[in-house]
Amino acid sequence: MKLKELGEFRFIDRITAGCLVRKEGVIKAIGDDCCVFRTPENRVTLLTTDMLVEDIHFLRHAITPYDLGRKSLAVNISDIAAMGGIPGEAVISIAIPGTIEVEYLDQLYEGMKSMARQFDVNLLGGDTTSSPQHLVINVALVGWAQEDEVLYRSGAKAEDVVFLTGEVGSSAAGLDLILSRKEFSHRDALLEAHHNPLPQIKEGRIIAGLRVAHSLIDVSDGVASDLGHICDESGVGAVLVESRIPVTDTFRSYCSEFHLDCEKLMLHVGEDYVLLGSVPAESADKLQNALESAGCKFYPIGTIVKGSGITLRGSDGSTREIAASGFDHFRK
Amino acid sequence: MKLKELGEFRFIDRITAGCLVRKEGVIKAIGDDCCVFRTPENRVTLLTTDMLVEDIHFLRHAITPYDLGRKSLAVNISDIAAMGGIPGEAVISIAIPGTIEVEYLDQLYEGMKSMARQFDVNLLGGDTTSSPQHLVINVALVGWAQEDEVLYRSGAKAEDVVFLTGEVGSSAAGLDLILSRKEFSHRDALLEAHHNPLPQIKEGRIIAGLRVAHSLIDVSDGVASDLGHICDESGVGAVLVESRIPVTDTFRSYCSEFHLDCEKLMLHVGEDYVLLGSVPAESADKLQNALESAGCKFYPIGTIVKGSGITLRGSDGSTREIAASGFDHFRK
Repeated sequence: MKLKELGEFRFIDRITAGCLVRKEGVIKAIGDDCCVFRTPENRVTLLTTDMLVEDIHFLRHAITPYDLGRKSLAVNISDIAAMGGIPGEAVISIAIPGTIEVEYLDQLYEGMKSMARQFDVNLLGGDTTSSPQHLVINVALVGWAQEDEVLYRSGAKAEDVVFLTGEVGSSAAGLDLILSRKEFSHRDALLEAHHNPLPQIKEGRIIAGLRVAHSLIDVSDGVASDLGHICDESGVGAVLVESRIPVTDTFRSYCSEFHLDCEKLMLHVGEDYVLLGSVPAESADKLQNALESAGCKFYPIGTIVKGSGITLRGSDGSTREIAASGFDHFRK
Repeated sequence: MKLKELGEFRFIDRITAGCLVRKEGVIKAIGDDCCVFRTPENRVTLLTTDMLVEDIHFLRHAITPYDLGRKSLAVNISDIAAMGGIPGEAVISIAIPGTIEVEYLDQLYEGMKSMARQFDVNLLGGDTTSSPQHLVINVALVGWAQEDEVLYRSGAKAEDVVFLTGEVGSSAAGLDLILSRKEFSHRDALLEAHHNPLPQIKEGRIIAGLRVAHSLIDVSDGVASDLGHICDESGVGAVLVESRIPVTDTFRSYCSEFHLDCEKLMLHVGEDYVLLGSVPAESADKLQNALESAGCKFYPIGTIVKGSGITLRGSDGSTREIAASGFDHFRK
């Protein structure tokens, strides 16, 4: 069915069911000029927004609308995880080209709602508009945390242990698969990493609750770029140990089968949506235990140092400075 | 200068100055995964989002980047006004085509910042991305109000007086001027109404503070459509008196000079961003006095009635039902 047969307001009615998953705190959901809600007691508000643009962030033929819906919310939930917060209320703007059918949008919103249910997020409103050519989805998401548990990029200190809470590179390999159209025996795992990342709210809450970490960010632009943000904001440098960067066996065999630059894919592409942070050496074990006993992962991958810049130490003991570079929207 | 010479992160540094206009309550502004702020005591949070898409909401050749920046924030502030709230913290997503130069974006952000300063709104972050073709701007805005003063679309009751807080139609006439490229002696006033609407926070606060109005909305889709929203949400109908719909002399002379359908422009196009609401007849004088003594306007334009639908009473006493229609993004 074409959207113009339905009209804007009947389309909004159609997608409204299932948007409210948690009534507590909500005063007004979809259907007014604003949504209205309460801030949980003794919490500060975290606010993030992310825009996904067709042909820039995704190819419409390569990702299912369901996964696209999930991912558009996931990347925002991941920003809340990176502050140590709990996600709460979301509003969605969408610009829809005339070529898209209602059934596609039904699937897109089903994907969003499934991600929202998984993380107890309400979809409380938004803006629907037409688009001359490309599909554009913007999510703005409110989350909450206690003021003294929020984790910033700016707290890293020399001698901190740099850690990751999951493997990196698989999303980049998935993107490479899509763009190159290679044949690969375990393609599904890599495509899943790229199309259906799971934000690490559980990890973020454990790290925030322990109050020992000095800094935290999520890996969206790539380990090198995102660690670069921590270093810049904290006025420090970092040394990474190449052999300690966690990757999956599938990622390793993909790189080896196609002779790909493994370092580039694991450090400079991003969209892994695991957490990257730093913790004082004396508290690293405590953090590792807390994460692992909850079924989460902790990989120490290097050390914060005085100065600036990121150095990579190879398995042969050699060291070299790497650019704190990842995806730059205006340079590519 | 081309954006690719600057890169994404230096562009963000460039626009950051002047984004924070009010430090109170702000814990973390631009520069982390989320911005972080406090909810003022005894206030609930209002959240709205609006997306402006090139060639759908604006023509890049017709509006200056400065006005486009102002308007992109204004339409969101207007949603906060329509709930009776105070605007607070905003995040901006922008998708930028490669054809746009840095100087254009400087002007766009100058416009946003001027609107932000005018309404004490902080720009606390956002998302910058490239766009394959069209410029897209999304704003998400948080505002606050006391829970018992928030005004909804759903409270209108039979025998309420329907009111407007300003003239309508000039924005529609301005749009008609742009699209038709007509010559008109007072074109500036109409273009200003379309390109530089001023959200009515002051009016909204007076209406909310008095606690007498039953319903409120801002005129974005057009009086007929927006009053239709109030009627639908409240389970009532309305009678409008045509001669009481407030328009400016410039609007009237524009319609008359070009033999335009005055009713369509004043009731079915929108983007006036004045407030439209309903108040019990016995409290209408009190509300009118409060607004007028603060230099604001109050125009009684009709009555809420039992039933459904909107009836227009002409100056000859005849009545006819009008469609609760305005701009529909998918029908046009």
